[in-house]
Amino acid sequence: RRELRSRMELLIMETQAEVCRALAALDPGASFSVDTWERKEGGGGISCVLQDGEVFEKAGVNVSVVSGLLSEEAARQMRSRGKSLKAKDGKLPFCAMGVSSVIHPKNPHVPTMHFNYRYFEIEEADGTKQWWFGGGTDLTPTYLNEEDAVHFHKTLKEACDKHDLKLYPKYKKWCDDYFYIKHRGERRGIGGIFFDDVDSPSKEEVFQFVKSCAKAVVPCYIPIVKKHRHDSFTPEEKLWQQLRRGRYVEFNLVYDRGTKFGLLTPGSRIESILMSLPLTARWEYMHTPPESSKEAEILEVLRNPKDWVH
Amino acid sequence: RRELRSRMELLIMETQAEVCRALAALDPGASFSVDTWERKEGGGGISCVLQDGEVFEKAGVNVSVVSGLLSEEAARQMRSRGKSLKAKDGKLPFCAMGVSSVIHPKNPHVPTMHFNYRYFEIEEADGTKQWWFGGGTDLTPTYLNEEDAVHFHKTLKEACDKHDLKLYPKYKKWCDDYFYIKHRGERRGIGGIFFDDVDSPSKEEVFQFVKSCAKAVVPCYIPIVKKHRHDSFTPEEKLWQQLRRGRYVEFNLVYDRGTKFGLLTPGSRIESILMSLPLTARWEYMHTPPESSKEAEILEVLRNPKDWVH
Repeated sequence: RRELRSRMELLIMETQAEVCRALAALDPGASFSVDTWERKEGGGGISCVLQDGEVFEKAGVNVSVVSGLLSEEAARQMRSRGKSLKAKDGKLPFCAMGVSSVIHPKNPHVPTMHFNYRYFEIEEADGTKQWWFGGGTDLTPTYLNEEDAVHFHKTLKEACDKHDLKLYPKYKKWCDDYFYIKHRGERRGIGGIFFDDVDSPSKEEVFQFVKSCAKAVVPCYIPIVKKHRHDSFTPEEKLWQQLRRGRYVEFNLVYDRGTKFGLLTPGSRIESILMSLPLTARWEYMHTPPESSKEAEILEVLRNPKDWVH
Repeated sequence: RRELRSRMELLIMETQAEVCRALAALDPGASFSVDTWERKEGGGGISCVLQDGEVFEKAGVNVSVVSGLLSEEAARQMRSRGKSLKAKDGKLPFCAMGVSSVIHPKNPHVPTMHFNYRYFEIEEADGTKQWWFGGGTDLTPTYLNEEDAVHFHKTLKEACDKHDLKLYPKYKKWCDDYFYIKHRGERRGIGGIFFDDVDSPSKEEVFQFVKSCAKAVVPCYIPIVKKHRHDSFTPEEKLWQQLRRGRYVEFNLVYDRGTKFGLLTPGSRIESILMSLPLTARWEYMHTPPESSKEAEILEVLRNPKDWVH
């Protein structure tokens, strides 16, 4: 059996290809811009970005495989649990790889989707290799559609349940906790799954779990796009979408650990990191939707997350 | 003579009124929304916001006067030099007051302007009162107009020069250094003046200096608005403005100390803090203006700040 590292690399490349193919099929007129880039310090990546299409306002799928030396401080920051690692001469050889994607559709009835699956390895001074996986898939609708929310969560739950029945409830809650815009008291969206720093029960078992999650991306999201891409919408609905896009920007720039880490890392590729930002966003002072409106309905769910499947 | 604290309070109220009057005169159709708010922990403020006017896309002028108890950690963060303060039972009585404003015009030939003048007092365990002033005024044009840049900086320089010839060069550089979007390698705009944590030569002298700066806000900016508010512009120019607005959001959410401090402070008024964000913004993947274009011209100045007056 091949080394896990190369099987993970294959999985992230396959996931990128699969998602890009699905997006291109839904938006045949739009062209993907494909950029390959190298990192001076070691490694590189491929960014595929579709912009201003018929169906998608902006959709990016990025893979990167980088390696090099990390400072103890940087290594500590990469682990959400903040474990300390023993370095040789203050530097730790590391390898990080991942696939990440944010898809912002044009139609306010088609939700935004984000996913990211990643793997890290760090070698300590005594030769011990620390490794862990992280990732997740989550949905950010402009308006609530319960049927879509259930389909999305159910598909993710099925992927989790194949491995351990405890995973979905745990990672569903982690997702609601992570994508929290504290200063607004709102979650970014209706969640999904999120996990970080996972290194048990075994490398092989976590990899198989991550593989199931990655394979669930297309089936959990693409049917929702197909269902709503031709829905009619009003200018007021488009405006509400723009305000929600503003919240998306707030989360990504103020709280998202990956974005913050990327912006602070010398040599990281800014355009690939900020690819997650929407094409357009809006901020209105003191905007408050009327009670019992469709806008208030989604806000309620963002303030008090719900369980969509049991 | 009245206590400085109440004279500063008067100055910030007067500055708010003066700026709002000037904006209203330029955009008579638009109405200001005026909100007064109270902070549970002590103090409050008044936010004046004009939105979607003829001339201004979004213009806000906010004053706040708050007092209460700060933790040692929070007090340390408020001082840019990070001085430590001796607290009684871990808490420090403080008073903070300020006027702040961001003005985003509609026309891409009228620059965005920001200013903020503030005063802090903290009482240490032994009864010693620490105090300091901070502030600044800076300009963010979408396109470079050298004449405007010179007028803006010259007006600020004159306000500074009345007090000490060393101030303008020092605070001009501080402004260029502070409004730096590190991950882009660009300043937010063409600068102005910025200073923080100033507590010498004396409370009275710093106050008089701050007063001169506050009085310079209208004369440094309003003539530029009057000059360009009827300029014609193309859809491409509007688009470039929207991309620059995106950079403005990046600076404010990722780097601005005031915004970060506000978002993390329990009980702060989020709508007044995020009033600084533009009504609309845009992010395009890999947008690069053609060489020798007007867009490349402003980028050059944002990457390598210039001296506008000598």
